[in-house]
Amino acid sequence: MDLAHVIRNIPDFPKPGIQFKDITTLLLEPNAFRQVIDTWYERYRARAIDAIVAIDARGFVFGGALAYALGVPLALARKKGKLPGETLAESFELEYGTDTVEIHADAVQPGQRVVVMDDLLATGGTAAAVTRLVRRLGGEVVEAAFVIELPPLQGRKALDGIPVHTLVSFMVD
Amino acid sequence: MDLAHVIRNIPDFPKPGIQFKDITTLLLEPNAFRQVIDTWYERYRARAIDAIVAIDARGFVFGGALAYALGVPLALARKKGKLPGETLAESFELEYGTDTVEIHADAVQPGQRVVVMDDLLATGGTAAAVTRLVRRLGGEVVEAAFVIELPPLQGRKALDGIPVHTLVSFMVD
Repeated sequence: MDLAHVIRNIPDFPKPGIQFKDITTLLLEPNAFRQVIDTWYERYRARAIDAIVAIDARGFVFGGALAYALGVPLALARKKGKLPGETLAESFELEYGTDTVEIHADAVQPGQRVVVMDDLLATGGTAAAVTRLVRRLGGEVVEAAFVIELPPLQGRKALDGIPVHTLVSFMVD
Repeated sequence: MDLAHVIRNIPDFPKPGIQFKDITTLLLEPNAFRQVIDTWYERYRARAIDAIVAIDARGFVFGGALAYALGVPLALARKKGKLPGETLAESFELEYGTDTVEIHADAVQPGQRVVVMDDLLATGGTAAAVTRLVRRLGGEVVEAAFVIELPPLQGRKALDGIPVHTLVSFMVD
């Protein structure tokens, strides 16, 4: 199945000029969702992954399903103030201002081989910050995986050498 | 496995006097996460469920894994302003003020048998509002499922006759 056909484009969301790529329509198609998870299941089972770090909040859907399928630990990277335990934080630049992402201090063990996962790779700021968090905990980011990539936003460059795996690309910014 | 042993208590989060039940420690234990999903897989496969509606954001982890396992559509119920398409909204009372939850207008089809899913049943306000959204779209809420229940907060009463299934209870408020 061509996943591009089950991802909905919403013009001008969340603000004028943005073409928002909506994965909720993909989630309503069990065959499409299964294709996403099974592709990554085969890929990461072969690479001896120890854990998945899923990014708040749509990343939780994909990370939850994949962690279940692989039988590996799932860690959550969340927006500031959402995680209740002891956390590490990393900030990153937005178009206007900065944002902060956090992870629990016990979420990743030293030496673990980790996949960082979200629905969409845009500028890559969040995923790069999450990668820094994983490394501060002693983990190795083996790959960052996203359903969708927007190549014009150059997210791979922000991820600075970390292997990136994406399933569908749209040439929009 | 006794799931109570892998759920962490965080005192005074998000504010003094609250005993926060943290499921991130459960997600780090693959056997515990698998036990949760497999229990619900058996339960809802037997009940011919058509779709899962998962509540933002920890509900996405469990809903994503279960929708993958069952091969049914997954709809997301989100905080106001997060869903990009046409939405329906329902508000509900908090201790101070109100909050609003939304669902896409195409997320549930008339006649579908739906399970509403979140990590925790506390006062039940969010889950009750999500139930109203599902019914406005013509869906039938067969059950509301939560990993954790806090019986002193009387969430079942707020859910007003909808069957509730929970996996572990804590007698705290």
